[in-house]
Amino acid sequence: MRERFRIAIVGSGAVGCYYGGRLAQAGFDVCFLMRGDLGYVRENGLEIRSVDGDFVLPKVSCQGDTASMGPCDLVIIALKTTDNDLLPELLPPLLHGETRMLTLQNGLGNEEFLARHFGAERILGAVCFVCINRTAPGIIEHLGEGEIRMGRYLGGPDADTRRVHDLFVRSGIRCTLSEDLDRERWWKLVWNIPFNGLGIAAGGIDVATILADPGLEALARDLMGEVIAAARASGHNLPDDLVERQMALTAGMGAYHPSSVLDHLAGRPVEVESIWGKAFQQGRAAGAEVVRLEMLYHLLRRFDASGRRHET
Amino acid sequence: MRERFRIAIVGSGAVGCYYGGRLAQAGFDVCFLMRGDLGYVRENGLEIRSVDGDFVLPKVSCQGDTASMGPCDLVIIALKTTDNDLLPELLPPLLHGETRMLTLQNGLGNEEFLARHFGAERILGAVCFVCINRTAPGIIEHLGEGEIRMGRYLGGPDADTRRVHDLFVRSGIRCTLSEDLDRERWWKLVWNIPFNGLGIAAGGIDVATILADPGLEALARDLMGEVIAAARASGHNLPDDLVERQMALTAGMGAYHPSSVLDHLAGRPVEVESIWGKAFQQGRAAGAEVVRLEMLYHLLRRFDASGRRHET
Repeated sequence: MRERFRIAIVGSGAVGCYYGGRLAQAGFDVCFLMRGDLGYVRENGLEIRSVDGDFVLPKVSCQGDTASMGPCDLVIIALKTTDNDLLPELLPPLLHGETRMLTLQNGLGNEEFLARHFGAERILGAVCFVCINRTAPGIIEHLGEGEIRMGRYLGGPDADTRRVHDLFVRSGIRCTLSEDLDRERWWKLVWNIPFNGLGIAAGGIDVATILADPGLEALARDLMGEVIAAARASGHNLPDDLVERQMALTAGMGAYHPSSVLDHLAGRPVEVESIWGKAFQQGRAAGAEVVRLEMLYHLLRRFDASGRRHET
Repeated sequence: MRERFRIAIVGSGAVGCYYGGRLAQAGFDVCFLMRGDLGYVRENGLEIRSVDGDFVLPKVSCQGDTASMGPCDLVIIALKTTDNDLLPELLPPLLHGETRMLTLQNGLGNEEFLARHFGAERILGAVCFVCINRTAPGIIEHLGEGEIRMGRYLGGPDADTRRVHDLFVRSGIRCTLSEDLDRERWWKLVWNIPFNGLGIAAGGIDVATILADPGLEALARDLMGEVIAAARASGHNLPDDLVERQMALTAGMGAYHPSSVLDHLAGRPVEVESIWGKAFQQGRAAGAEVVRLEMLYHLLRRFDASGRRHET
């Protein structure tokens, strides 16, 4: 299988390079689609600085367009959701009749989007619980966590899901199978919505600064409560102690800037719609009380637009 | 009276220079306490570019310290509330036994602060409904509105209040007397809290940008509703149609940046505590539902701190 099963990584930011790098290190046939970093990585390879042990991939297969990559058996999508509208044109050269697609993207609605364009049967998704930053071309810092939870868009895991799951496990990635992918997405949103959102809306701050400010710490808890209420109203049960668990996890992260905060500070687009927009809209439609989430969403939408306008 | 009644203006930003300038133009004996603009204004005077007609005061009495100004009959305080802690040391040289103090400052708690330090009997307050910016040293742009509502800290207007009111009226300022100064303060907060607050928290935007964004426009209305609820719970009745009136007024302001937004964009301190902090705390203590106001307050506190940290 190692020789014949071809894996494409579409979107080679922190998440794509980290998980793709782990698969490549394990000997799987991985090709990265790259834009800005293509020249650097072709020349120098990829370097993963990881809390689980650093490693370097001196020779990495990468291309600047999907036509040069050709058909693959698994297409892993780690592009930012703000670029989703590129996918219908970008992906077809990578597909054959049996190609599976696995989205590692943030927020809600990504499997639906892919299903609409490429057929629901081939769509898998995974939620990455990982603290990770791309700090320079070809250099990824893995700061903590790393577990992913994988599932199928339609129904529970099937043979294909288990096969992809197996690739990840054999690459040393903590990976569990999930019967309810949307529940895992909401689980991650319980963290992402407050800590990415308040980090941006309060001026570009790290998670330790949020925890050290009593007003923002209480607001983070209140936002988590609203996201849990939205998830439950949407039929996805989350554990009662999730707020406390997430707060404890966050306290261990130190002065971590979530990637959306870094994106915002650098004037890059933030995934406002897929994270805050979809969660607010689904929560409200399901009848949950989401006043703070609504307010954060409207601030981030405009704040993101302003931030990028200042940049240009 | 014109010769003998001495007026000090403490805090010569947009509000101090505009109202002090109108009093000086009418021939009253006005002396401005200035910091940064002192040299420029001594040399060049004050220029008021007003929707009600431009005027220039080529010779303006101004000093860099209160000892040089000496005792006055009326001390008008237009300092930003973030500098209130300077007042107990700054003001005593301006006071004699009969000196009245009139605060034109924003937010809640300013009369209480002055009363605590200088005695309640001498304290007057006024709420300025005005669109005004200091655009350069000695230059004030008066963009619209201009009415002020004046009252006494303790009880209704007395002879002294009417005398000060008369000075303003004779200077061509639309000025009304109020039996309930705190009600006027809440009235102004109904506008300041959403438009200054969202202007900052959404990335430094003007009021037209807020009105053009359906999410932020709805949020501005919701925030106004919370401030009205807080005012009513605190015993100050505001009219039922105030939200609609304020929205209509705002639509006429065009691309106006409220002064707090300009302060924030320039890295200067914002009056977070006297405007958002006091309103939230009083509203909550009175049992009003102020979830959005609470969130905005906590964001602005940190955002303001971050903005100024980046500045230094």
